[in-house]
Amino acid sequence: MRQSRRGQVDPFIVMDVMEAARRAEAGGRHVIHMEVGQPSTPAPEGARKALAAALERPLGYTVALGLPELRKGIAGLYRRWYGLELDPARIIVTPGSSGAFILAFSALFDAGDRVALGEPGYPSYRQILRSMSLEPVGIETWIENRYQPRPEDLPADAQGLILASPGNPSGTVLRREELSALTRRAAELGMAVISDEIYHGLDYGAGFHSALEVTDDVFVINSFSKYFSMTGWRVGWMVVPDSQVRTIERLAQNMFICPPHASQVAAMAALDCFEEADANLSVYAENRKMMLKRLPQIGFSRIAPPEGAFYIYADVSDLTANSLEFAAEILDKAGVAVTPGLDFDPKRGARTLRFSYAGSTADIAEGLDRLAAFMAAR
Amino acid sequence: MRQSRRGQVDPFIVMDVMEAARRAEAGGRHVIHMEVGQPSTPAPEGARKALAAALERPLGYTVALGLPELRKGIAGLYRRWYGLELDPARIIVTPGSSGAFILAFSALFDAGDRVALGEPGYPSYRQILRSMSLEPVGIETWIENRYQPRPEDLPADAQGLILASPGNPSGTVLRREELSALTRRAAELGMAVISDEIYHGLDYGAGFHSALEVTDDVFVINSFSKYFSMTGWRVGWMVVPDSQVRTIERLAQNMFICPPHASQVAAMAALDCFEEADANLSVYAENRKMMLKRLPQIGFSRIAPPEGAFYIYADVSDLTANSLEFAAEILDKAGVAVTPGLDFDPKRGARTLRFSYAGSTADIAEGLDRLAAFMAAR
Repeated sequence: MRQSRRGQVDPFIVMDVMEAARRAEAGGRHVIHMEVGQPSTPAPEGARKALAAALERPLGYTVALGLPELRKGIAGLYRRWYGLELDPARIIVTPGSSGAFILAFSALFDAGDRVALGEPGYPSYRQILRSMSLEPVGIETWIENRYQPRPEDLPADAQGLILASPGNPSGTVLRREELSALTRRAAELGMAVISDEIYHGLDYGAGFHSALEVTDDVFVINSFSKYFSMTGWRVGWMVVPDSQVRTIERLAQNMFICPPHASQVAAMAALDCFEEADANLSVYAENRKMMLKRLPQIGFSRIAPPEGAFYIYADVSDLTANSLEFAAEILDKAGVAVTPGLDFDPKRGARTLRFSYAGSTADIAEGLDRLAAFMAAR
Repeated sequence: MRQSRRGQVDPFIVMDVMEAARRAEAGGRHVIHMEVGQPSTPAPEGARKALAAALERPLGYTVALGLPELRKGIAGLYRRWYGLELDPARIIVTPGSSGAFILAFSALFDAGDRVALGEPGYPSYRQILRSMSLEPVGIETWIENRYQPRPEDLPADAQGLILASPGNPSGTVLRREELSALTRRAAELGMAVISDEIYHGLDYGAGFHSALEVTDDVFVINSFSKYFSMTGWRVGWMVVPDSQVRTIERLAQNMFICPPHASQVAAMAALDCFEEADANLSVYAENRKMMLKRLPQIGFSRIAPPEGAFYIYADVSDLTANSLEFAAEILDKAGVAVTPGLDFDPKRGARTLRFSYAGSTADIAEGLDRLAAFMAAR
């Protein structure tokens, strides 16, 4: 049967690690998971209770842009987090941030258009672009610049730019003035800017700024997945310029009909659950402190300052030129699953690893002990 | 800000009707809804109970292709409905049938490819295709052929073909031998076939056949939305040839990560709820009987045999050349919301209407009374 060229996107290399970890566990091995990109906690209790109470209702299609009260609630989050007053009409509820990327790329770019993005970065940016006949243009970033692109790094011949702060895998954060300089330069070059802010709220003192603080001419993408611990619920959102709302609405009606209704009900209640979300955050903060203290002692010292999210990206070029093999060795000998950098940076990821600290503090402590023993014996 | 050409898809005309109905209701008017495309019943009780019981679990990401037990359960449905033994590895759980279309089109077609589809048909086929830089090629179908394309109608220069049985808006069903002839001809022409079977199970005696009964070289798309009454849950599935599974998996990992976990849990339990689904079906059967008896008496007599789904598509060319205006008049004077045919058939839909009988029997009876009075006074 026929297959398209654009359907031939790259596999996730981390999947091989996860499959190897699963096999080890099936064989009776105990594995510490530092490869996962999600909280181990459930959705906030208030969110689950609200859904339980709503289960008698039909929960049919909602309007394509999402429940009006949820859009209003998200506007409240912008007031709380950034002191911004947003018209809820600009806020579009989406099937996860994934759905938001599909909608944004459809509304902004035609087949053959080029979209720039920092490397290392979230691998699905590239693959979603490719599957939509768009061309990802990697921008090499450097540990010295906290793995974030600078205005002078933007290519002159691209139609779009994806920013990510805090970044995945780096956890590094763009300052307000950096956001301002980058979006200004992108505007000069005629690039549409998409700002991925999915890890906002997961902050350890550096603070975080939305691109909306510096411009309205931006697509901002976020989600309930991370700070609100609702990955599997597939509910995210996007803030777009006024002039784009009608286009996005038509696309969303046709491409998704609506985001999952049950998840929207849960998300609405999650917006009242800051206490529980912040309790999760203190666990990550504790884990992060441990990681930052012990990883360098263990031998992983070349890391960018992980200011947000729950990842640490380590340059391990002094230890290996094959991060996939190295990750397999760590899993095999130490019983710790970590992610080789290849998914995030096709060019230089053979010399990097990502460690996630989204697990429990006991697990992270145990994982660090195992890594220490492994490296000492190496 | 920039906008793409492909993002400029057509609006749903039915939305204007729904908005007018909403305004009428906000003004105190009672409206009978014959425009909706979804059951008014909630998800089956067993499905809701299973989810309620699962709410303590994290419900994080599932694997991209869906929970293995759910894929096995769907294989059971193919055994029950068609006597087919399917390898669950070929069954892919998707975020609604909408997500399945996006995955199928990505895996099969490159920018500029042409995909044929019967007119009248589900409007989002066209719009999703356009948003992915693909070109919809309408095939005119006729009431004499039950609004379904014939093998000799297929264009020679298209890369794909979408079949829909039961059709929306027509409710008409392709016989097994018709499916066989159509898929054979499509194969001769080098077209990939996508068979939309979302209304399977909603059958009033004519029976229904899956394209999988006549070929494995097909993408079959279905959903929990209609027969299982779970529209807002956004969980559907797709059966693909073995050779396509790996491609679809990579696309799904990147484009959607996974279908909503909570909805997958509910869907799994729904597969044990045939009694409740069949009780809903008997309501539609009762409604359909009433519609088929009374609509011709009222003056809507040019209809294709509605063998499945919960729609009746009427040729009203003897009554109007402007179905949008006519629908507005029916809403205004009779207090009944119906769908003008323009969404389903851009060329000839100005002379057709779609009536949905997914509502309660009392509502349908009242709607028919109102339509009778309206037409008598006209």
